[in-house]
Amino acid sequence: MTRKREQDRIDPSGSPQRPHLPDALNPVHHLRVMGRLVRRTSKKPGAPPGTLVHTGPRKVEEVRLSFIDYDEGGLREREIAGIEECYPFRETPTVTWVNVDGLHDVQPVRGVGGHFGFHPLVLEDVLSVGQRPKVEEHEGYLYLVLQMLSYDEATGSVQSEQLSLILGENYVFTFQERPGDVFDPVRERIRNGNARIRSRGPDYLAYALVDAVVDAYYAVLERIGDEIERLDVEVMESPEEDTLHRIHDLKREMLVMRRAVWPLRDVMSHLLRSDHPRITKETQVYLRDVYDHAVQALDTVETLRDLASGLTDLYLSSVGQRTNEVMKVLTIMASIFIPLTFLAGIYGMNFEHMPELARPWAYPALLGLMLAVAAGMVWYFRRKGWI
Amino acid sequence: MTRKREQDRIDPSGSPQRPHLPDALNPVHHLRVMGRLVRRTSKKPGAPPGTLVHTGPRKVEEVRLSFIDYDEGGLREREIAGIEECYPFRETPTVTWVNVDGLHDVQPVRGVGGHFGFHPLVLEDVLSVGQRPKVEEHEGYLYLVLQMLSYDEATGSVQSEQLSLILGENYVFTFQERPGDVFDPVRERIRNGNARIRSRGPDYLAYALVDAVVDAYYAVLERIGDEIERLDVEVMESPEEDTLHRIHDLKREMLVMRRAVWPLRDVMSHLLRSDHPRITKETQVYLRDVYDHAVQALDTVETLRDLASGLTDLYLSSVGQRTNEVMKVLTIMASIFIPLTFLAGIYGMNFEHMPELARPWAYPALLGLMLAVAAGMVWYFRRKGWI
Amino acid sequence: MTRKREQDRIDPSGSPQRPHLPDALNPVHHLRVMGRLVRRTSKKPGAPPGTLVHTGPRKVEEVRLSFIDYDEGGLREREIAGIEECYPFRETPTVTWVNVDGLHDVQPVRGVGGHFGFHPLVLEDVLSVGQRPKVEEHEGYLYLVLQMLSYDEATGSVQSEQLSLILGENYVFTFQERPGDVFDPVRERIRNGNARIRSRGPDYLAYALVDAVVDAYYAVLERIGDEIERLDVEVMESPEEDTLHRIHDLKREMLVMRRAVWPLRDVMSHLLRSDHPRITKETQVYLRDVYDHAVQALDTVETLRDLASGLTDLYLSSVGQRTNEVMKVLTIMASIFIPLTFLAGIYGMNFEHMPELARPWAYPALLGLMLAVAAGMVWYFRRKGWI
Amino acid sequence: MTRKREQDRIDPSGSPQRPHLPDALNPVHHLRVMGRLVRRTSKKPGAPPGTLVHTGPRKVEEVRLSFIDYDEGGLREREIAGIEECYPFRETPTVTWVNVDGLHDVQPVRGVGGHFGFHPLVLEDVLSVGQRPKVEEHEGYLYLVLQMLSYDEATGSVQSEQLSLILGENYVFTFQERPGDVFDPVRERIRNGNARIRSRGPDYLAYALVDAVVDAYYAVLERIGDEIERLDVEVMESPEEDTLHRIHDLKREMLVMRRAVWPLRDVMSHLLRSDHPRITKETQVYLRDVYDHAVQALDTVETLRDLASGLTDLYLSSVGQRTNEVMKVLTIMASIFIPLTFLAGIYGMNFEHMPELARPWAYPALLGLMLAVAAGMVWYFRRKGWI
Amino acid sequence: MTRKREQDRIDPSGSPQRPHLPDALNPVHHLRVMGRLVRRTSKKPGAPPGTLVHTGPRKVEEVRLSFIDYDEGGLREREIAGIEECYPFRETPTVTWVNVDGLHDVQPVRGVGGHFGFHPLVLEDVLSVGQRPKVEEHEGYLYLVLQMLSYDEATGSVQSEQLSLILGENYVFTFQERPGDVFDPVRERIRNGNARIRSRGPDYLAYALVDAVVDAYYAVLERIGDEIERLDVEVMESPEEDTLHRIHDLKREMLVMRRAVWPLRDVMSHLLRSDHPRITKETQVYLRDVYDHAVQALDTVETLRDLASGLTDLYLSSVGQRTNEVMKVLTIMASIFIPLTFLAGIYGMNFEHMPELARPWAYPALLGLMLAVAAGMVWYFRRKGWI
Repeated sequence: MTRKREQDRIDPSGSPQRPHLPDALNPVHHLRVMGRLVRRTSKKPGAPPGTLVHTGPRKVEEVRLSFIDYDEGGLREREIAGIEECYPFRETPTVTWVNVDGLHDVQPVRGVGGHFGFHPLVLEDVLSVGQRPKVEEHEGYLYLVLQMLSYDEATGSVQSEQLSLILGENYVFTFQERPGDVFDPVRERIRNGNARIRSRGPDYLAYALVDAVVDAYYAVLERIGDEIERLDVEVMESPEEDTLHRIHDLKREMLVMRRAVWPLRDVMSHLLRSDHPRITKETQVYLRDVYDHAVQALDTVETLRDLASGLTDLYLSSVGQRTNEVMKVLTIMASIFIPLTFLAGIYGMNFEHMPELARPWAYPALLGLMLAVAAGMVWYFRRKGWI
Repeated sequence: MTRKREQDRIDPSGSPQRPHLPDALNPVHHLRVMGRLVRRTSKKPGAPPGTLVHTGPRKVEEVRLSFIDYDEGGLREREIAGIEECYPFRETPTVTWVNVDGLHDVQPVRGVGGHFGFHPLVLEDVLSVGQRPKVEEHEGYLYLVLQMLSYDEATGSVQSEQLSLILGENYVFTFQERPGDVFDPVRERIRNGNARIRSRGPDYLAYALVDAVVDAYYAVLERIGDEIERLDVEVMESPEEDTLHRIHDLKREMLVMRRAVWPLRDVMSHLLRSDHPRITKETQVYLRDVYDHAVQALDTVETLRDLASGLTDLYLSSVGQRTNEVMKVLTIMASIFIPLTFLAGIYGMNFEHMPELARPWAYPALLGLMLAVAAGMVWYFRRKGWI
Repeated sequence: MTRKREQDRIDPSGSPQRPHLPDALNPVHHLRVMGRLVRRTSKKPGAPPGTLVHTGPRKVEEVRLSFIDYDEGGLREREIAGIEECYPFRETPTVTWVNVDGLHDVQPVRGVGGHFGFHPLVLEDVLSVGQRPKVEEHEGYLYLVLQMLSYDEATGSVQSEQLSLILGENYVFTFQERPGDVFDPVRERIRNGNARIRSRGPDYLAYALVDAVVDAYYAVLERIGDEIERLDVEVMESPEEDTLHRIHDLKREMLVMRRAVWPLRDVMSHLLRSDHPRITKETQVYLRDVYDHAVQALDTVETLRDLASGLTDLYLSSVGQRTNEVMKVLTIMASIFIPLTFLAGIYGMNFEHMPELARPWAYPALLGLMLAVAAGMVWYFRRKGWI
Repeated sequence: MTRKREQDRIDPSGSPQRPHLPDALNPVHHLRVMGRLVRRTSKKPGAPPGTLVHTGPRKVEEVRLSFIDYDEGGLREREIAGIEECYPFRETPTVTWVNVDGLHDVQPVRGVGGHFGFHPLVLEDVLSVGQRPKVEEHEGYLYLVLQMLSYDEATGSVQSEQLSLILGENYVFTFQERPGDVFDPVRERIRNGNARIRSRGPDYLAYALVDAVVDAYYAVLERIGDEIERLDVEVMESPEEDTLHRIHDLKREMLVMRRAVWPLRDVMSHLLRSDHPRITKETQVYLRDVYDHAVQALDTVETLRDLASGLTDLYLSSVGQRTNEVMKVLTIMASIFIPLTFLAGIYGMNFEHMPELARPWAYPALLGLMLAVAAGMVWYFRRKGWI
Repeated sequence: MTRKREQDRIDPSGSPQRPHLPDALNPVHHLRVMGRLVRRTSKKPGAPPGTLVHTGPRKVEEVRLSFIDYDEGGLREREIAGIEECYPFRETPTVTWVNVDGLHDVQPVRGVGGHFGFHPLVLEDVLSVGQRPKVEEHEGYLYLVLQMLSYDEATGSVQSEQLSLILGENYVFTFQERPGDVFDPVRERIRNGNARIRSRGPDYLAYALVDAVVDAYYAVLERIGDEIERLDVEVMESPEEDTLHRIHDLKREMLVMRRAVWPLRDVMSHLLRSDHPRITKETQVYLRDVYDHAVQALDTVETLRDLASGLTDLYLSSVGQRTNEVMKVLTIMASIFIPLTFLAGIYGMNFEHMPELARPWAYPALLGLMLAVAAGMVWYFRRKGWI
């Protein structure tokens, strides 16, 4: 609560400093970046554990509970008004998936936690957005925290959104503040009566959801890859200070990605080795596939970071090279004309006794000498490879 | 002892060198930073182990012993005058928490050590501030060393304060030199008769205290995050030498944080895997939560370090870029006017036989030539993209 | 599908930006590089696992199925029109090797997967090019993904091509989009009736194929080594901006190699420790040899990366050194002639009362003074070691 | 032997190159640094193992054998003339500690090795100074190699001295070339009849000696910390080339420290986990304390290295910044006066037809124009923020 | 084969580019460096494993087989003409050591492989020089690959030479292309009838040989250490571009060393933990000694690399510092004289109405003003600390 206010305090003080900047560089953007990096702790400091307070900004107006219940034979899908409507399905052998969009209203979380007997710390973590991806094995259920990533074209930044997933005996709960569309393909597959997912248990559903989250990482990676592509061309062709700022921003975006992807690998690797009763042998083969994708995403993030570092180096040496060229032009101009000007200065002196001044050939001779000096300089610089 | 004097010796010699510096840069500040980095060993070199000497500076006037004893039914809270007053509670089944503020008087430590039979090295470590965070399992009790961090707005530096915690069968002892306020919320919860903490054992109290310490890290991290934010804007907008000095100082502050947080992760991970009888199964779930917070704090420290490094790079390339621009202005000015001055110099010569001088059109012609040369130069620089 | 189109969208927009660049730097090349780094996920995001879609570009016109069946006694080798032709050989004790060139037609993969009972995710991975090298142990067969590398002289880039290998009880399947020639020596050895390969099982054949893939890495490494060699000479002799761009490109190529070779080591190490029934004890000795080669290739990649980094550093300091030299020339010229010009300017003034002007010895004396000043400057710069 | 001569060969060739350098930079100092970094192998190359030759420089005139024998009841302390005098105490249950200062005379080592049956390689290692810290478990005794560090104020360098310690059933042998004073406090404690050390076994004595060695590291670390402190102020205030050289030297000193401290941690960690009969359970608690100190020393070394790296960066950017400022002054001066000089040059030309020259207002008008140009320039530079 | 030719192709093309370079920088040298870094794979790509082809350059004219057979009682040492001569000694209990110099004739390798039953891959590896150091445990014998290092003073480069060692029940075979002298001290010890080596088994002989190889590393390390020493002085005193090139070369040499030493540590560590029947318990103590030496050599290589990196940094900042100084001289000269020249230019103008020109005091007054301006400038620069 107090933290929220602190952030507000920074916003106005930051804004006036950079009023004429393009959107991608304005301070609001920066604050958003930082907000994603310095993750707030899960609750008011010192508050008792299990305090149910949503710690993130409110992003949607309405809490939305979407309910899907299916088995090989049938499918019930609808929006439910209250979380209680799903309680009866705890007893049925069908797979029940309840997705909660909007966490600022803590009622559904409290309700489901009480009825299904989830640990208070799990409920607290569901509401404290900004958690590090992790998996927790509890008796009777598994708790997963993931970060969903998307690329916000407007601000050119990577947005991350916490997804909490609880996998129980015959149900899956997913919680997120802002509704996303990464789960739509999974819903489509469930609706299709013949799909493999209909004949599998809730662990397969959980796999499908995690897989959809990881798949979405690749879209962000590609977007960043394109941006690096463009900057690579720009650095070689026409590096400007703004180029460097954009590389700098990009590196920061990749720090956000890294923080989502690194722990994810550990989460998947833990699930692969886990012998929790909620994960069946058959599903573990599929989880290995997700693990492979996570490792590959991680690989790509690291490679992109290497590329971005390479760009910074290239930029720096381009600037050094350009300074060198500017220097050369100055040196050539100055070195040719300064001696000539001196020569002209000599014969601009007003001494009475300068016998050369009276000679008719002196002027052309001096011009010739000047030409020779200039030619000598040009020859010298050419030999040095400067021209 | 000798070390204390050595530090004194440095203070005056350092001061005169920088008398006119702003507070954040003065040598006293620096010495304080260094003091936090080069941690002194725990005792006079070569002294026998278990020598009870307080190794840090005295920060409070009075030793203060605050005593809380509680169980689900009742609560006794008071300040006690002598450590002996808590001895009788060793026998009662209630949870007893004694917090000692002020370590320069070694009497309470010696007394408690003698009565409860703590190992001499534990007592020595309690008094030797500047320990690395660690956990030691002893028979019958656990010994934890942590570093409490706070951000001192006056000097812009991170202050660390050693907290020693001894967890026994039905008691918890905490020792620190300077009284802090991070434990106040825990005291509040104890006072509340219905709080979960009242019905749990001393290990849950220890968890609550450690959790409060770790929670306080986030305030420091946010403060540093804000500072990086501000510097990020400053580097892009108007980098000055002072900006760099502040980034440099910030990096040093983060070294202090790292030294507190890295070992903490190992401490928590050790406690999680521990099967010491003082840690109950139920509390371990809560310790995992603290472990997650510690890992996240560590993650954030590392990310902030990456950001600060990025700032240094950005600063350096900004300076390079600016030098380049200064060079361009000089080169353009010099390259345009030096040849023109040379031309003017030619016709300022006093040769008797310079037929051009007498021609009426010579002067305007030369002015025209000069204009052409200048225009040519401008065109050349424009083609190079310098203008 | 949508991704394919996205790439198309980039291509044209990228091209016009750099129309006059040499081939090695054109945007198509860059896009190709990036395409190799940001590996696309294996399928349409959110699509059900096991969806059989080829995710890479179509590189060959025709699917080509080459079939070899052999034992110590005999050899049957031919091109087959349909994958079904190889089904009967599943029952024979002879070793059967079917190589599929061209993956855009998913029919052979689907056929073989159905008949031999491969896991749907394996079939999906065969078709999703851009996988990270890996090994999967399934019941009854092993699945390997490798990247074949080749150096494309035309674009100066490293091309990678996914090879999938399935090793069953008495058969080996290999899948790739573009037919390569790395397997030709293996085919030769099979055709030679006395070769050891004829008397061994399918695991030895698989070893021989993997060995051929790894051997091909060395040709690429040598090619890059030669390039570094050339750049090393160039950086020391005549560093130009283009040199740096080529080092930059080279580093990027090595990122491609690293991504192929690093995981390969893990694959080989896994196979070495594996007790899967498809890998016999005798073949494991040979696999250790491949493992050694992979480690050595990795070593070489890392060393080449170190060398390339060293080149960048050397280039940067060369540029700094050269700027320094340019500065020296400018400083020497300016420092010598600017004071002289000033002296000449003094006596070019038109004051009526300048008694020196009338003295006959004044002019030669001033020339002498000028000479002395110039000589003094030269002496000064020589003492500084600048000349 | 041959190596000794090689070093001699370098000394004179190195000296003449830098005859006028201050002490801290002279080549002898450098050679000493290098000598500490490139540790010579333990013996003449190819010589049989167990060859007893002292490989370091002779630092003391006399071999000194100091003998202490004690138990709870009594104490015998004296200098002994020959190593044989301690042999009888092998049979007594008292703790015997023989410290050998001076290794160039191999007789005591050979004698003690023969009588107590130490492995030839142990004896060889005792004499071959420059070993990496290590612990070796032999039957009946433990062999430790440590590096004692001290800061030599005269040369400003860290001196390391090999300490060999053999811990047997009821005796401890320590060997070093140069007598140090780090053991004096331990001797004091032994002389004190009531000290804990008197009632413990030889493993506690060994612990006390190792602890004294590690304690001495902190004095060196503080000394280096002070130096970094001073350099930090210097870099910000008035960076000169000498500052950089001293940072460079400091970094080299820290390489020396690292080489002593890193392996020490492994040594202590090995002893902690060891179940060798010479290490009792009670002493292991104390060893953990030493382990903690070693880890903390290591931490500090790494932090100091980070600080020194930060100083180099700061120095570099300070230089860049200063170059930038120098450039600005030059550019401002040149940009203001070069155009003015050109204008003056125009009207210094001797054309006969320059109508302006005759106008009375021309001169003040030109002066006004010049003033305007100069003011314009100043305004321009002020707007750029250069003035 | 084809590779050999490829290298030939490069040689001439590389040579003409740098015809006037000193020996240390010529392209042949570089190619040699590269040849040591990009290790060729062991055989023609795709050739069957076990193909016996020597892959390195032929360095000696004649194959030389030196034979030593000994036990405690006697010694037979001679050169043998054919490898068959050693076969009979397979049956005797004496230790037989056959050293083969020259691998271009594959006959001895093939012969010994056939008679003693070595694995084809071992024989292939013996002939394929450029292997990574490794150890292979086979039934009945151990196979070791090491790299012998020597410093070639002529080219200033580190030469590495592959040593293959096969340790059997009562024999040791060593193979190398070029005869070295590192084994001479071992031969001496064998000839000495009383040496410990005469009473030990073949594993002790193998230890002695490996120890001799590792001992030789130290000579190379010292040589490189001396070179760094010299460069350190040079960088501080008079850094030139050539200094940087030599640091660059040195770094490359250290990459060669690293590639030999890193894997060696793993080899020795493997042997220490090995329970292969060919390694006796008593010899393992000695192997630990070699392991210690290898670790120490590795430590030294890493330290030298750190030092070399420090030198590059120091060089770069020296250049920056020098550029700064050059700039200062230029700025001071230009800033003093450009305004003065302008003043002189003013009074060199030919306006008719310049009343000052007629005043007698004007000229000395102007000279005074000029002096004042110059003095002001000097004062300003002195205050800035530039003079």
